Order: sequence, then structure tokens, then C-alpha cells
Amino acid sequence: MASHESAHGAGPEKTYWYHGDKAAIQRRLRRIEGQIRGLQRMVEDDEYCIDILTQVSASTKGLQAVALNLLEGHLAHCVAEAQVQGDAAEAEAKVKEATDAVARLLRT
Amino acid sequence: MASHESAHGAGPEKTYWYHGDKAAIQRRLRRIEGQIRGLQRMVEDDEYCIDILTQVSASTKGLQAVALNLLEGHLAHCVAEAQVQGDAAEAEAKVKEATDAVARLLRT
Amino acid sequence: MASHESAHGAGPEKTYWYHGDKAAIQRRLRRIEGQIRGLQRMVEDDEYCIDILTQVSASTKGLQAVALNLLEGHLAHCVAEAQVQGDAAEAEAKVKEATDAVARLLRT
Amino acid sequence: MASHESAHGAGPEKTYWYHGDKAAIQRRLRRIEGQIRGLQRMVEDDEYCIDILTQVSASTKGLQAVALNLLEGHLAHCVAEAQVQGDAAEAEAKVKEATDAVARLLRT
Repeated sequence: MASHESAHGAGPEKTYWYHGDKAAIQRRLRRIEGQIRGLQRMVEDDEYCIDILTQVSASTKGLQAVALNLLEGHLAHCVAEAQVQGDAAEAEAKVKEATDAVARLLRT
Repeated sequence: MASHESAHGAGPEKTYWYHGDKAAIQRRLRRIEGQIRGLQRMVEDDEYCIDILTQVSASTKGLQAVALNLLEGHLAHCVAEAQVQGDAAEAEAKVKEATDAVARLLRT
Repeated sequence: MASHESAHGAGPEKTYWYHGDKAAIQRRLRRIEGQIRGLQRMVEDDEYCIDILTQVSASTKGLQAVALNLLEGHLAHCVAEAQVQGDAAEAEAKVKEATDAVARLLRT
Repeated sequence: MASHESAHGAGPEKTYWYHGDKAAIQRRLRRIEGQIRGLQRMVEDDEYCIDILTQVSASTKGLQAVALNLLEGHLAHCVAEAQVQGDAAEAEAKVKEATDAVARLLRT
């Protein structure tokens, strides 16, 4: 996590992974949280399985949008910083780490 | 939704799409809800983007497990019922509807 | 594979899993094969990585369309047959097997 | 495509997106091509649908491995180059383009 430290620095004002859109990500996450609670109500009320599956797909799509937003900021800041600083091993490690994260997203 | 009516019947005791594991699905959904709230805290605390992405993947995997559980029950009950009742058009419509739901899951 | 035998019967004319669209599936597969060869040429010619990734997505989308086509036929025939024949254990096994196949598709 | 030109330069020796593993990508693609031909034989021979679906999943997984390999090289070279050269707009465009490619992969 040392690399996180170096990338994110001392305080919240130093976070790099969002282009001022931390608020947008939080709004998305709250909407997804509401969808998950909605799913619990649908299950409780024995709603039609296909309608529940459609809502599951919508929640998953919301999570993917969050992931892409985070990934874009991460590439633009944490990875870029490592590359600009010229430490080839660190830059390569950052790229590998980001690609592994994409692999986990693809497998889910 | 008439088919839902016919499949799910009059009361909660008549729901077909879960093999007695409605409680298990609800537990999963509550755990996912907790993960989504955890994501909001991680974003709030400026945690490392890759760690947040890993948590997003875990939540998505949880939603897929819910979807597969629902799908299995749906095939075993709603779709099977339509097929056993021998109305070919209704059975075909049910299969098409289930396949379309899988297509939506695959695209997310 | 006994169930396969019982479902598919003696000859090609007895295959159940396609609604007469075996030819359509083969056409899709040939088109995908062409796309994979196209990918090899793109790599050979050092085409731009993003353009190659776009072509990879197109090939994957083609494979998913094949999978959904196969799944729909499988549910409409092999699974339905098990359910109509009234052997509950066999029907449940068929549904489980189909759901597991969807799980594999979702993880890729 | 100008950026492609600048990244890939005049000849094969100037391609950046593979770390010497162009041969590995080509081997993977030839194996996938063989799997797609295998799928055509399986369909032709009326093999069991679930076995065909399993093979479709394997081919899709192969394509994802190719995509991740390409993405890693792209981030390490084309995107890094834009970031190191210090043109902020170009660097941002490269990151956006890579994220969009990941979005297409996620949707398939």
C-alpha cells in the first residue's frame, strides 16, 4: 500500500483517482444501495423471478459504471504518476496491477 | 404478468422460484447491501482505487450468485410448469423470456 | 451422457437443440472463425491495440450469441423433455446442469 | 489513428504493445481458431449442447486472455508514452480510449 500512500498523499484533498467526481461516484453507490434494498423487497413480496433478474442486471450495470469511473481515474493519476516518475519497475507493477483488476472485473 | 400469477399462486407459501432458500437469497442480498455501504466508506476515506475495484468485483460476484440462484429456481418451477402443462406457445415464450434474462446478465 | 442419447436419438434428424437453425449457428461460427483469422492478421500487421481489442469484443459477442442460441434450444428441448417425462431427479439434474453452464458463461 | 502512427512507428521492430510476446498472442489466437473449428464439428456431429456451451466458454476465456495481454501492453506503452510526453489532452484521450475499450469488453 506504500504506492497508495505515495499516490494519495497526506489528506483527502490529495486524492487523485477522481476528477472531482467523488460525489458522482457516491451518488451512484447510493442509488445501487437503494436497488439492492429494492431487490430484498421484491424477493420478500415474491415478485416475478424475471423482473428480479432484470433488477439484478441493472445493479450489476451500475457497479460496472462505478468500476469504469474508478479505473479511468486510476489510469489517469496513479498509473500515470508512476510512469512519469520514470521508475520502470514501479510503472510496470502499476500497469500489471490495473490489468489484474480488469481481469477480476471480466470474470464477474 | 398473468403467467407470474399462475406460477406464484395466491400467497407466499405458493412461491415457486426458490427451493425453500428465499432466506438464503435474502442473506446474500443483505451481505451485498453491506458491501455497497462499505464501498461508500472506502470512497469517502480515499482508499486505494485497486482495493475499491476488488470490492466492486466481490459485490458483482455476489449479485451473479443471486441471479444464478433465481434462474435455477425459475427454470425448475415457472418454466417447467409451462412445459408440463403442454401449451407449446406458452412454454416457448417462457424459454425465450429466460434466455433473454440470461442475455441481459451476460451483457453486464 | 445417457440423457444426451435419449434427447438426441438415432440420427441427425433427431437433434433437438436447434429449432432448425443448426445452419444459422454454423454460419455464425464460420463468421467468428473469420474474425479470429482477422485478429491474427491485425496482430501480424501491428494494427492499433484498441482496434484489435474492439475486434476481440466483436468475436466474444458473436460467441455469446451462439451460446444463447444453444441455451434456448437446450431449455426448450433437453430440459423440457426431462421435465415432461416426470422424473423429478433427472429434471432437477438437467436444470442444475444448465444453470452451471450459464455460470461458466457469466464468469467468462 | 495518428497516435497509432506515432506509437507504432515505421516497422515491426517499433511496435510497442507487446513485450516481445507477439508470438504468444498469435499462438493463443491460433488455438482459439482451432477451438472455433472444433465447435463447428461439435455442432455438425450433434454433440450434447452443454458440452458445446463449455467449449464456447473456453473460447471466450481465451479471447479475454488475449484482450488482457493487449491491454497490458497498451497501457505500458501507448498510454504511458502519451503521459510521459506531457500533452495532458492527449494523455487524457488515451486513458478515455482505453477505458472505453474495457467497457466494451465488460459488456460482452
